[in-house]
Amino acid sequence: MHHSNLIFRQMFEKETSTYSYLLADAYTKEGILIDPVVETMTRDLKLLDELDIKLKYILDTHVHADHVTSSSSIKNATGAQVVLGKATGVECCDILLEDQQEIQFGEFKLKALSTPGHTNGCTSYLVENMVFTGDTLLIRGNGRTDFQEGSPERLYKSIKEKLFTLPDETLVYPGHNYAGLQVSSIAEEKKHNPRIGGGKTVEEFSQIMNNLNLPHPKKIDIAVPANLRCGQEA
Amino acid sequence: MHHSNLIFRQMFEKETSTYSYLLADAYTKEGILIDPVVETMTRDLKLLDELDIKLKYILDTHVHADHVTSSSSIKNATGAQVVLGKATGVECCDILLEDQQEIQFGEFKLKALSTPGHTNGCTSYLVENMVFTGDTLLIRGNGRTDFQEGSPERLYKSIKEKLFTLPDETLVYPGHNYAGLQVSSIAEEKKHNPRIGGGKTVEEFSQIMNNLNLPHPKKIDIAVPANLRCGQEA
Repeated sequence: MHHSNLIFRQMFEKETSTYSYLLADAYTKEGILIDPVVETMTRDLKLLDELDIKLKYILDTHVHADHVTSSSSIKNATGAQVVLGKATGVECCDILLEDQQEIQFGEFKLKALSTPGHTNGCTSYLVENMVFTGDTLLIRGNGRTDFQEGSPERLYKSIKEKLFTLPDETLVYPGHNYAGLQVSSIAEEKKHNPRIGGGKTVEEFSQIMNNLNLPHPKKIDIAVPANLRCGQEA
Repeated sequence: MHHSNLIFRQMFEKETSTYSYLLADAYTKEGILIDPVVETMTRDLKLLDELDIKLKYILDTHVHADHVTSSSSIKNATGAQVVLGKATGVECCDILLEDQQEIQFGEFKLKALSTPGHTNGCTSYLVENMVFTGDTLLIRGNGRTDFQEGSPERLYKSIKEKLFTLPDETLVYPGHNYAGLQVSSIAEEKKHNPRIGGGKTVEEFSQIMNNLNLPHPKKIDIAVPANLRCGQEA
């Protein structure tokens, strides 16, 4: 299902159950890294070296509240540029992508889809038949809407209008999973997502989201300010 | 890289860092499950149901020492047959595969490769361009050889003659990874595996394996007898 010239690696960080993604053109070796985590930076740099990948972009799907990005450290080690969605307003990065804007690595294009709701700056990244959804759409779930600029109504609109309108067979690669699942598809989430699948209305979705009563994220007071600095020390 | 008619899901069990694999023919929906774990049985059965998969075979790569298989429970729930390698001598299973023997699900063939060394009955399973190596070959590592019928010499021979002779681009899907890596390739392991890659001799490999000084696996006294019963209660 993956394009045969595409190197693709999903990688897991256990403490925060975060997925990072490495994609590269197998011929030119130009690559990108999505949502890298500071705890696994050594592992990631080693793999980049072993696979002989020339890193071009480091992308975050949003300003994370649950883990610290390694983007600035990996930039220092590789010379890659740091990329985020425009609505994050993050000033330390090199490129701020607008909705529908594309960037290229090797023969592959990545398209930014602005998907606010978990935070204002949340951006999903589409490459071939894969969409990297960060905390917007999760496997049988979605990002919470009770902190930062969370809004159930905006999140509903983003998922319904930006993600559920992608082809059914598009593979969904989320920012987290806590059950050991790694991938889903748009068709699966339209059908089986218990919060927004099966034709749930915005009222039903908002009622679910407003009654989750989740604990405050453990690392938010450290992670958000650090991620606004692209993970650099204060 | 995956055949477009193949449903493929790698799934993770956190406590023992075990990977289970679901493969199915997207058209006939006939599927197989490799190395399922008792702790994640509910998750796995739910996914089988959501994806409408008719499970035909449940395979274990070997008699695990670190976790208990859910094979007999999933057999009871689905009617699938339990499969292991012949040299395991496991009596509770339905099919014992010999080296090079093939079984089929939908349009796909699975070939058993006898790869003793971690245990005598260790079997790797080849489907299309993917090899499921259990504890024989891991990502930048390999299974230990200091309990059950472990033998560095046999393991060296299995990896060199049965796995490293597969096409370089064959994807290696292991039974475990503790660093959050999910997949490698034969080319990568031939080059970067620190114990057996880069032309290491059997003497070098054996010396490494005989000096690991690993702690005894926590669950071995429960897991091995349970797995010899295909996970059934005693």
